[in-house]
Amino acid sequence: MNNILSSLKGKGALAALALLAASPAFADALVENVDGMTLDENGRVVRFTGVLVDRDGKVSKLLQRRDKRPEKLDWRIDMKGRILIPGMIDAHGHVMGLGFQALALDLSETQSFDEAKAKIVAYAAANPDRPWITGGGWNQERWGLGRYPNAAELDALVPGKPVWLERVDGHAAWANSAAMKAAGITAKSESPSGGRIEKGANGQPSGVFVDAAMALVGKAVPAPSPRDRNAAFLEAQKILLRNGITATADMGTSLDDWMTYRRMADLNFLRVRLMTYADSVDTAVRVGGSGPTPWLYADKLRMGGIKLYLDGALGSRGAWLKAPYADAAGQTGLPFQTDTQLLNQMSRGAMDGFQLAIHAIGDRANGQVLDAIDEMQTSYKGDRRWRIEHSQIVDAADLPRFGRNGIIASMQPVHQTSDRTMAETRLGAERLGGAYAWRSMLRNNARIAFGSDYPVENPNPFVGWAAGFTRQGPDGQPFGGWRAEEALTREETWKAFTIDAAYAGFAESKFGRLAPGMRADFVIVDRDPSAVSPAELRQTVVLETWVGGQKVFERGGREDAVPEALTRDPVRGGPPGR
Amino acid sequence: MNNILSSLKGKGALAALALLAASPAFADALVENVDGMTLDENGRVVRFTGVLVDRDGKVSKLLQRRDKRPEKLDWRIDMKGRILIPGMIDAHGHVMGLGFQALALDLSETQSFDEAKAKIVAYAAANPDRPWITGGGWNQERWGLGRYPNAAELDALVPGKPVWLERVDGHAAWANSAAMKAAGITAKSESPSGGRIEKGANGQPSGVFVDAAMALVGKAVPAPSPRDRNAAFLEAQKILLRNGITATADMGTSLDDWMTYRRMADLNFLRVRLMTYADSVDTAVRVGGSGPTPWLYADKLRMGGIKLYLDGALGSRGAWLKAPYADAAGQTGLPFQTDTQLLNQMSRGAMDGFQLAIHAIGDRANGQVLDAIDEMQTSYKGDRRWRIEHSQIVDAADLPRFGRNGIIASMQPVHQTSDRTMAETRLGAERLGGAYAWRSMLRNNARIAFGSDYPVENPNPFVGWAAGFTRQGPDGQPFGGWRAEEALTREETWKAFTIDAAYAGFAESKFGRLAPGMRADFVIVDRDPSAVSPAELRQTVVLETWVGGQKVFERGGREDAVPEALTRDPVRGGPPGR
Repeated sequence: MNNILSSLKGKGALAALALLAASPAFADALVENVDGMTLDENGRVVRFTGVLVDRDGKVSKLLQRRDKRPEKLDWRIDMKGRILIPGMIDAHGHVMGLGFQALALDLSETQSFDEAKAKIVAYAAANPDRPWITGGGWNQERWGLGRYPNAAELDALVPGKPVWLERVDGHAAWANSAAMKAAGITAKSESPSGGRIEKGANGQPSGVFVDAAMALVGKAVPAPSPRDRNAAFLEAQKILLRNGITATADMGTSLDDWMTYRRMADLNFLRVRLMTYADSVDTAVRVGGSGPTPWLYADKLRMGGIKLYLDGALGSRGAWLKAPYADAAGQTGLPFQTDTQLLNQMSRGAMDGFQLAIHAIGDRANGQVLDAIDEMQTSYKGDRRWRIEHSQIVDAADLPRFGRNGIIASMQPVHQTSDRTMAETRLGAERLGGAYAWRSMLRNNARIAFGSDYPVENPNPFVGWAAGFTRQGPDGQPFGGWRAEEALTREETWKAFTIDAAYAGFAESKFGRLAPGMRADFVIVDRDPSAVSPAELRQTVVLETWVGGQKVFERGGREDAVPEALTRDPVRGGPPGR
Repeated sequence: MNNILSSLKGKGALAALALLAASPAFADALVENVDGMTLDENGRVVRFTGVLVDRDGKVSKLLQRRDKRPEKLDWRIDMKGRILIPGMIDAHGHVMGLGFQALALDLSETQSFDEAKAKIVAYAAANPDRPWITGGGWNQERWGLGRYPNAAELDALVPGKPVWLERVDGHAAWANSAAMKAAGITAKSESPSGGRIEKGANGQPSGVFVDAAMALVGKAVPAPSPRDRNAAFLEAQKILLRNGITATADMGTSLDDWMTYRRMADLNFLRVRLMTYADSVDTAVRVGGSGPTPWLYADKLRMGGIKLYLDGALGSRGAWLKAPYADAAGQTGLPFQTDTQLLNQMSRGAMDGFQLAIHAIGDRANGQVLDAIDEMQTSYKGDRRWRIEHSQIVDAADLPRFGRNGIIASMQPVHQTSDRTMAETRLGAERLGGAYAWRSMLRNNARIAFGSDYPVENPNPFVGWAAGFTRQGPDGQPFGGWRAEEALTREETWKAFTIDAAYAGFAESKFGRLAPGMRADFVIVDRDPSAVSPAELRQTVVLETWVGGQKVFERGGREDAVPEALTRDPVRGGPPGR
């Protein structure tokens, strides 16, 4: 047999694979002695002490202490009174981005420029084989630098080899001279439409490239190999499961991302549920053909929608505003496409029944998408669930429009706590009435789906949950919460991270809460998230994660053994004898 | 639910889909009262009267008349004494090409230029919505035209609209003026390397484009939509099943072909087993990542190898010969790639464990591939099953080299009967010692896998089977068979169309014969192919086709209802209100 399974034989990894294959969903299993809680379809807390799981990995019944247990059981698991909650769902993340970031140089935790410099030097030393040093997560605001870093500073750290590091929001990147040389960037290079090459006083490119200009250098970075992609996916999945996330939207799935998910699923390595949104109409139709794919692999994978971008981010002043930035006279950010272009794309996708998810950060961008949806809605009837991704800075006058047309505001609580100071700087206090306006969204009958936008933010949903009802950062600041009138309740936040995140992906009949017929996706945690203080909630430790009645993560336990042949490129020589 | 299933609801097609879903492989079924025959692993005929099929759609036992039948059966099918044989396997075909050809203008049955002209006019009239008239199957040799047709002749039939028609062998194509205009072809256009623009005495392009030159016009043809691809696949599958083919190699699978197969399989419309060979190393790694995919959908789909081309075909004098063509002084055909290029690609594929299948028609091309395999074999050990596709014109001195290195000669009996006259013209009698040399291949310990090269030839395997042991065409000519010493026996031919065609795709443990543990793929036919005359064998009628214990074709019976939403593009307007 000349295939992947046989290629593993010699490597001693076959046993691990066989173990996975021999671990089917339990046949009529009882997960017993739990302190269980879930929301019901109305968002009310339901408590239980046992979960009966059927042969398909679905919940057949939630049991109370007094309920009789079935006599015939294939399996019984005693959870010893620990807390069990439904698996958390992230409504907006970037799976492959999370994996690549985890494997790349990560500057997201660096608090100062010096700390970042040390990390860059260390990573380059630890990875001598990599042709390029890539990574990101830097944030000059967090460093207190007051300006962008530049190429010369990077040259001093890694002189010979190209270095290319994305800003934390993905809307700018920092190159050294070797990278700019490899990309053919010179003083004569001009900023493309929708982007900016930062230049120094001498007219030379300073090393930072904003939005559309990033592609000028990005295209010179060697593409990851399929094995690199496998490795990145597996790393991302590990991180998600460890955080108690059993399902996630994947925003901007490329064709190669999709191929990676299928490869891993075909080899029985897909654990987390993926609701994918194609990176373009073309990708969507190449994959789905005449419309969304069915749910694949027992509800683990689907391409149901298309993610489109209308503007950039606040940090890089790419968000498209109605009035100029408070801290950059005359700048209003810029749209990535015209009205007509946006409508054309939405129309092409909607005609085939794909869900549309449009990125809009600035108030002008949000208004523009709301206009587009008004117009689309006249032609494309039915349950469309138009999504606006981030819905971050909204003109207060536009807020009531969210409730109309069944729009889903796909928002990220931690963006609020991370960005509030910057938002005040960029916009000034008077324009924040519709910013991160969760309570106003609900009051206007919009549905909120919460996510983290990982890897822009850490995917830990318990941190997001705490932010959702406190409007406070991990440091408990500001006292009483930032614009606390926009906070949700603890239960509303939970719902946005479970039931409504599933609803936003047309999955509410499959997962998002525990009830008969729903997939048995749940998490064992070390504290009661419905009761502990916000500070304690943020520290929640996930002990076990179960997807479809199968344990897929155990803290301190063995992880899936993944054969190295799937993730490490062999050393490639030329053709033999030449 | 905003997906394909729900989109069918309003169209009354859901019932058809539900029917399919409710038709699982039989649970311990008995296919009873058959006049059954199969080859065993040694190629000997085994006869039986019943087939016991298990819940996975595999044969659990072949029963003789005297054997006791199990008492507990979920299903029993009385075949009333009809003939049952294993499903036929085509070792070399082009699935999407077959489907597109079936939906396009088909000139393959035309016996004269006039008949072809009438068919072109009729098709254009019947398909007024098509932006281009495309199709093929023409053969100026069969028409007795003695020259290529030209653009002016086509302009007279279809003046305004582009027309683009491939030659029967796929190595040349015929355009009208509108097509050449759309492609920007003028008198100044130069023949590319590896191809030829035919030109008239006036220096103007005559309308025929050979080999690599075909791309000059081909690139202007609008790409098929995903729904076009769905439709083509379903059409091809219907043709294959109707011909009793239950498994086929797909040679030159593009990424979009692969996406189509997966779409259809995901929606439960994949019936025939596909052993796919990628059209390039890049496609193979984008799909398989680190190596061949596993067998998917219960052994229905796999990407196990890579198809590469070394030369063209005999008809267009693209086949690469050691000495010039007998009928074209100085011309030897041409290789599509250098030795080093070929070795590079083979090496890239072999390193990841992909099987290599190299197209070689001419004796020089065959020699070159044999050289390459000799060299590859030193680096890439193990069960590689190097394939040479067609192995058509082989220098007699090279024949013994086929037995070495475990090479599979993937040949097409009907090419011999269709091409023999042309082969004599192109090569002269003295160079035919190693042409279509089936018996010599076996004598030299090569393994032969037989196919039809559909849509170049009709996929009917019974016609190929008859050719295999007679070396005679459908007209029974020539008397006694052409170079009859190269004929195989009836059983050897059968084996090459079943067991060895499966072996050539690393599938011999899954299908190709009926025995316990093998997939229950079989065909009910109207006569005994092990006994009837060759003329009768060619007329064999397939009554039923079964794959994995499921009936997937019945002559005169209902066919799968495929929802129109999967195969017909909606009328697409602009965005609403613009």
